[in-house]
Amino acid sequence: MPGEFELIQRYFEAATGARADVVLGVGDDCALLRPPPDRLLAVSTDTLVSGHHFVPDVNPESLGHKALAVNLSDLAAMGAEPAWASLAITLPDADEAWLAAFMRGFAALADAFGVALVGGDTTAGPLSVSVTVHGFVDAARSLRRDGASVGDRIYVSGTLGDAGLALRIQQGLVDLPTGPALQARLDRPSPRVQLGLQLRDISRCAIDVSDGLGADLGHVCERSGVGAKLELARIPLSDPVRRYVRETGDWSLPLTAGDDYELMFTVPCAQQSVFDEMAARLATPVTSIGEVVAAGQGVQVLAPDGSRVPGLEKGYDHFRA
Amino acid sequence: MPGEFELIQRYFEAATGARADVVLGVGDDCALLRPPPDRLLAVSTDTLVSGHHFVPDVNPESLGHKALAVNLSDLAAMGAEPAWASLAITLPDADEAWLAAFMRGFAALADAFGVALVGGDTTAGPLSVSVTVHGFVDAARSLRRDGASVGDRIYVSGTLGDAGLALRIQQGLVDLPTGPALQARLDRPSPRVQLGLQLRDISRCAIDVSDGLGADLGHVCERSGVGAKLELARIPLSDPVRRYVRETGDWSLPLTAGDDYELMFTVPCAQQSVFDEMAARLATPVTSIGEVVAAGQGVQVLAPDGSRVPGLEKGYDHFRA
Repeated sequence: MPGEFELIQRYFEAATGARADVVLGVGDDCALLRPPPDRLLAVSTDTLVSGHHFVPDVNPESLGHKALAVNLSDLAAMGAEPAWASLAITLPDADEAWLAAFMRGFAALADAFGVALVGGDTTAGPLSVSVTVHGFVDAARSLRRDGASVGDRIYVSGTLGDAGLALRIQQGLVDLPTGPALQARLDRPSPRVQLGLQLRDISRCAIDVSDGLGADLGHVCERSGVGAKLELARIPLSDPVRRYVRETGDWSLPLTAGDDYELMFTVPCAQQSVFDEMAARLATPVTSIGEVVAAGQGVQVLAPDGSRVPGLEKGYDHFRA
Repeated sequence: MPGEFELIQRYFEAATGARADVVLGVGDDCALLRPPPDRLLAVSTDTLVSGHHFVPDVNPESLGHKALAVNLSDLAAMGAEPAWASLAITLPDADEAWLAAFMRGFAALADAFGVALVGGDTTAGPLSVSVTVHGFVDAARSLRRDGASVGDRIYVSGTLGDAGLALRIQQGLVDLPTGPALQARLDRPSPRVQLGLQLRDISRCAIDVSDGLGADLGHVCERSGVGAKLELARIPLSDPVRRYVRETGDWSLPLTAGDDYELMFTVPCAQQSVFDEMAARLATPVTSIGEVVAAGQGVQVLAPDGSRVPGLEKGYDHFRA
C-alpha cells in the first residue's frame, strides 16, 4: 500500500491544472497564488460527510465531481469566476482505485471550469471531503444575499426537487421509477457558474438553492431586511417531480429538499427589460417565481387562489434532519 | 438544541475579526476579500481528525487553538503574514458548550495573529476540523522547500520531540513525569510566524517540522535536489526529552515523532554573518543542526564519531502509523 506522501504526489500533483497565476502549487507548506489586481477574492468552503451527505458506497467519481460542484455553486451564487481549489480529504484507508476514481471526477469538473487544484491535506479517518474554492469578482458586481430590494422579481434556474426525489427513491421512501437524468441531478449537480457571471450586470442578489428554496429565500430575506412572496404554481418542476407532486399533493420536495444547486436571484424593476432580452438566450432556463416585498411576513408561499400555504419555508438543517 | 444556522450565527460571526480587507465575512455564499496588490497569496489547509490527531475527549479550547496553530505554522514556514482563515468543522452533535470553548481557543489565537475568520462550513458527523489559512508574501522573499542549496547550514527553532514525548506519556507508553509545559507543546503549539517573517531576507528555504525532522528534511532534499547531513549531538532537546533519550538511548522522538511545529530552515554561506547577528536577538532560539550536501545519500544522521545512524530519517505517515 502506498504511503500518504506517495498518494498525494501521484494523484494531487497530477490534478493541478495549468494556470499562469499559480506560482507554486501542490507540494510545499503553502500554495503561492497571484490574485488579479483590482478584483475581490471570493472564498467558500463546503464539506461532504459520509452517511450524511452521501452513502458510504457512493460512486467515488461522482463524489469527486460533487465535492467540487457544490463549492463552484457558491462561487456561481456570488457571480465569481472560478480559479483555485484546495482539497482536504479524510479516507478510511489508502485505497488507490477509489482515490483515482475520485480524482477523475474532481479533475474533470476542475478542467471544465479552468480551476487549478493548488493544495490540501490527506488524512486517515471516517470518509469526508472538504473543499475550499477561490474565485474573482468585481466589487461592484457581486451577487450578495443582502442585495434584494422590495419590488424585485425573484427567479430560479432549472427545476427544483429533482435531487430530493432521487434521494427518496434511492432510500426506498418513494416508489417511483428513477432514471439516469434524475439520478445525475443528485450525484453530479451542474454548478450554474456561467449564469452567475451573466447576472453580474443585472442582479445584485443571488444564492444557490442548497438548503431548500424556502430556507434559502429566508436567508436572503433576513440578510436583505425584506420579505418574499413565492407563487407555488410558478415553481419550475421536472416531469418526475411534477408527477410526484400531482400524485401525493406533497410540495415539500421542490420547496424544502435542497441539494439542487440551482441559482435563485432577484431582478430589480429597472433591469427587467434588459433581463427579459437576456433570459431568452440563457443556456440554463430561468423562471420567475415570486416577488420581494416589505419585511414583516417572512417568506410567504401562496397557492393559486392567493391563500397562504404554511410549513414550506423551512429547509435542511444538518443537526435537525 | 439550536439549529445549524443559529450555531453558525452565534459563534462564527462573533469570531470574525475586524480587518479592513474583509469586504464580506461569514454569512454569504462566499467571503469577499481584498488581497494586497503586488503580493502573493499563500494558502494552506490542514485537517485534524478525532482518534487520529487528537483524543475524542480532547479539551475543546486546546483543539480550537491547535486547529488554527498547525495552519499558521504552514504560513510561518513560507515566510507569510497571516490574514484570513476558513473553518470547516464536523461535529457529532450541536453541543453548545463544546463549540463555545472550541471557538474561544480558535479566536484567541486568531486575535493574537490578526487573523479574521471569514467563512467555513458546519456539518454533522464524526468529529474533525479542517482549516484553510490565507497569508501574504512577497514573491522574491518566500521560503520554499525547493530553496536549499549545497553548503547551506541547516537550523531548527526551539526544541524537538516534546510533543511526541507528551503523547507517549499520555498514551501510557512512557513512564516519566509530565507537566503543563510539556503537555502544552502537544496541545497548544506556538506557530513560529514571527521567525518566518524575520527569515525572509536571510533564507530561501524553510519547512515546519510536523511530520518529524528526518521526514521533513527529506521533503526539502527531494524538492531541492540535494542531500543533508544532520549531527545528532546538535539536535536541541528540552530537559524532559534529554532525560528520555539518556535513559532509553532512543532518538526516535526528536527525529521522527513530529507535531512540534518548529521551523527548520537553511542559511546560505553568504548570509551567515547577517544571520548570526540576527540570531542573538530572536525571540525563539535557533540551533544549527547540520549542512546541505550534494544529492545522492539523502538525509544522513551522524553520531558524534561521524558514523551514520540508520533508521531515523522516516517520519509520521497517516496511513502507516
